[in-house]
Amino acid sequence: MTTTPGSPARRGRPGYDLESLLQVAVRLFNERGYDGTSMEDLSRKLGITKSAIYHHVPSKQELLRLAVDRALGGLFAVAAETEGIEGRAIDRLEHLVRGSVLVLVEQLPFVTLLLRVRGNTKVERAALARRREFDRIVTELVKQAETEGDVRPDIDPAVTSRLLFGMVNSLTEWYRPRRGSSPAELAEAVSKIAFDGLRLPPQPASA
Amino acid sequence: MTTTPGSPARRGRPGYDLESLLQVAVRLFNERGYDGTSMEDLSRKLGITKSAIYHHVPSKQELLRLAVDRALGGLFAVAAETEGIEGRAIDRLEHLVRGSVLVLVEQLPFVTLLLRVRGNTKVERAALARRREFDRIVTELVKQAETEGDVRPDIDPAVTSRLLFGMVNSLTEWYRPRRGSSPAELAEAVSKIAFDGLRLPPQPASA
Repeated sequence: MTTTPGSPARRGRPGYDLESLLQVAVRLFNERGYDGTSMEDLSRKLGITKSAIYHHVPSKQELLRLAVDRALGGLFAVAAETEGIEGRAIDRLEHLVRGSVLVLVEQLPFVTLLLRVRGNTKVERAALARRREFDRIVTELVKQAETEGDVRPDIDPAVTSRLLFGMVNSLTEWYRPRRGSSPAELAEAVSKIAFDGLRLPPQPASA
Repeated sequence: MTTTPGSPARRGRPGYDLESLLQVAVRLFNERGYDGTSMEDLSRKLGITKSAIYHHVPSKQELLRLAVDRALGGLFAVAAETEGIEGRAIDRLEHLVRGSVLVLVEQLPFVTLLLRVRGNTKVERAALARRREFDRIVTELVKQAETEGDVRPDIDPAVTSRLLFGMVNSLTEWYRPRRGSSPAELAEAVSKIAFDGLRLPPQPASA
């Protein structure tokens, strides 16, 4: 067992590293809105001084940047994986949808914050630009799958991709971990509904 | 031509009735958040005094109530129509989905505000309770359609209904009137994807 002599003053006081500080900040941003949360609010919530926060990060905007970068990093990692899959575009699209559901569930508060970003600061505008880039990747896959005859051609690919990710992103509104479906079940549910629909074909009467 | 003697002082100043005042208030709430908008902000935006606003409505909360009631009124009117449709539950569900898309598009700013309500005031808690009631109507229709063998039984009906309306509600995030699809095309697109899926069945090779 290791003891840490010389630091008794820290006992009984919460210790934060950048990671745990970020977790609390993101939760607060999601509750009160990024604009509505001050470093003062954060310092009260953490029970540490503002200068203790500034020891870890230079600004509130930097906390936002770290948070949205984590969400975007997860989503773009899935998009990169997707590119490596040989074969049909519809299979890549399905991989992207399933992988995105898993990222959303794993990084729920981070993606929730990303999806609420409105573009008032440099960090927010950069995040919005990367979201548009991700949307373009999805739309391109839909177009390609349509050209290959695997996706219905009767809906504008931009509309299809927005509806598809509208369904995926809705998870941030209603999914609560530790209740109901597992991440894998959710990915399966989204994929089934999106690709094959809710409707069961009429069964031939057995008589 | 009618002249209005005695009111020259009003000329060149915007005149608001409750409806136009509500429209501006809802736009402002959506831009800055309901909590983040004061009656002072609203009076500046309208270019009229606060007491001129209070001539129309007693409080900010009353503006919110009027706005979310309009959105909920539209959605529940569709739900009531749906109940009157005879036959299979899947047809009622499809009617509810299509009708909800049309309400969202027609009442876009009002439904956008409704979907952002978080429950800090009495009006917000009442709106959330009615949203849950609407969700229960959707879930019941999904369950019934499943019992009738028309909807895939391999996904929890509560998850199915949340994904379905996740897709519908996403319109408030990306649909812009006067650009792209018409409301009827959108309702058709949502319905096709939700009920029949994106995937086209493999075509028999013609050689």
